[in-house]
Amino acid sequence: MIDRIRKASGAGPSRPGLRLGIGDDCAILSPPGGSEVVVTTDFSLEGRHFRTDRHPARSVGHRVLARGLSDLAAMGAAPLAAFLSLALPSGYPVRWLDGFLAGFFDLASRTGTPLAGGDTSESPSAHILADITLLGTVPTGKALRRSGAHPGDLIYVTGSLGGAAAELERVLQRPGISRLGKGPHPHLLPEPRLAIGQKLLSRATAAMDLSDGLSTDLTHLCRASGVSAAIDAAALPIAKSATAQQALHGGEDYELLFTASPATRLPKSLGGVSITAVGQVQRKQRHVITLVDHGTRTPLAPGGWEHLR
Amino acid sequence: MIDRIRKASGAGPSRPGLRLGIGDDCAILSPPGGSEVVVTTDFSLEGRHFRTDRHPARSVGHRVLARGLSDLAAMGAAPLAAFLSLALPSGYPVRWLDGFLAGFFDLASRTGTPLAGGDTSESPSAHILADITLLGTVPTGKALRRSGAHPGDLIYVTGSLGGAAAELERVLQRPGISRLGKGPHPHLLPEPRLAIGQKLLSRATAAMDLSDGLSTDLTHLCRASGVSAAIDAAALPIAKSATAQQALHGGEDYELLFTASPATRLPKSLGGVSITAVGQVQRKQRHVITLVDHGTRTPLAPGGWEHLR
Repeated sequence: MIDRIRKASGAGPSRPGLRLGIGDDCAILSPPGGSEVVVTTDFSLEGRHFRTDRHPARSVGHRVLARGLSDLAAMGAAPLAAFLSLALPSGYPVRWLDGFLAGFFDLASRTGTPLAGGDTSESPSAHILADITLLGTVPTGKALRRSGAHPGDLIYVTGSLGGAAAELERVLQRPGISRLGKGPHPHLLPEPRLAIGQKLLSRATAAMDLSDGLSTDLTHLCRASGVSAAIDAAALPIAKSATAQQALHGGEDYELLFTASPATRLPKSLGGVSITAVGQVQRKQRHVITLVDHGTRTPLAPGGWEHLR
Repeated sequence: MIDRIRKASGAGPSRPGLRLGIGDDCAILSPPGGSEVVVTTDFSLEGRHFRTDRHPARSVGHRVLARGLSDLAAMGAAPLAAFLSLALPSGYPVRWLDGFLAGFFDLASRTGTPLAGGDTSESPSAHILADITLLGTVPTGKALRRSGAHPGDLIYVTGSLGGAAAELERVLQRPGISRLGKGPHPHLLPEPRLAIGQKLLSRATAAMDLSDGLSTDLTHLCRASGVSAAIDAAALPIAKSATAQQALHGGEDYELLFTASPATRLPKSLGGVSITAVGQVQRKQRHVITLVDHGTRTPLAPGGWEHLR
């Protein structure tokens, strides 16, 4: 298993910041001067975050890495290195591992993310267990946080919303392992918004990624900033196959949610990904989020998205 | 679970290098100028690395962190931050979590290791799953690697060997959960050698920690350095309750194994922990390790330690 991972990682990118990779007690990283290091870790557990009877191995490998990269994007960071802990049940087919690694390293390669270490074990149960740690770098003091939104700021999202929830529903309803035909695959192959995140440095006042759904994540952002928000239902960029409910509450879109002053000029799209104003930050009120639908104002409670519920 | 972890972590140390801890998409770390960042991750899976019917929760929490800290010690690094991913089975007793966190944060506090983030999930099986990521800092270019041993260097170990394997045997034979009475507890509460590791910077030519047993780990170090080694059986610091076989092959002592030029002056002990010369590095030979026992030379094969085998 270690040999296959090493071999697959050999094809991946090397970076000047990576002084020593897989093979010693620790990896050694040398972040560029004038930068800070941001770190995130995310579990991906079979039965909780994916199902091997529905998700192709390539999708699982892609998603494990995409979850962490999306957190880096939310801070405006550039990837520095990834660390993968992976446990497979005894005697698990090598073919699955190869598919997983193909998905993982395809995304790693495209995003300039070297695998610098990790751990492997035999799983104590019949479940595949993965945990990803991502390190990124961001100019000192510039990292985007959840806590900087001010009343009056506009609220933006990248891309479209609800597509991942809609595709997940199709994946769970259709028997057998999904095929990765012509995209887009917002659930099976979500695209972390690294380039946009880095462009938002010094522009956004607060940012986070949409992993639990707009209603839940915007609540987090507002609470961290001590503000409330009004969302314009008509402005939501609902994904083609998705419902308004999925756009409001569906998780795992891995788009960016951010706020910026109305005076800040933002492009309408970046690298083919749209940037849409969906509402405005308000002074703290009784309800954290108000949904405005053709003049009717209703409180919007967090949707409480749970993976695979 | 997250609330309990946050609360317990509040008692832990804060560090100037930790700019932003738990609660955003990523933690933000600011390593001191002139330093590099070292990173390690280690799984601790119930049934593979510990047993809840044998190991007290406090021991499990301690060991999860100690494994990672020992890797930092082996590089000569100082702890910067820890990230804990933890999944408990549905409805798991809060009392177990509290014991786990007590063991974890007791060691974190003593070693100046702030918990800066992580992930939580419900375990998909009946097994507790933990994964630890440790970041440390070390002066640029000075990190101890496995690959620097030269023929003629002396081979050293810290503390005594085989004690963890001996205690593990007692833990597995005795029914019920072990008690953490008066120590030492080389298996249940191993002590990472952080202070000694940092003292070895610019002194040791190669270093690693003893997690898989002397015969296996010295083989790794020799292979990484392209050398062989002769070990003097009579010089081995065998732990009180351990056999010579346990000292040679028993895993998880978490002592340091290192090499240094004979011209390098080393103290006989540091902070009450002994430093013992146990052999000498040789030019690469057919056998990686030779055991010298009262003049009789025999090849020493890696013992092939496996956790809980």
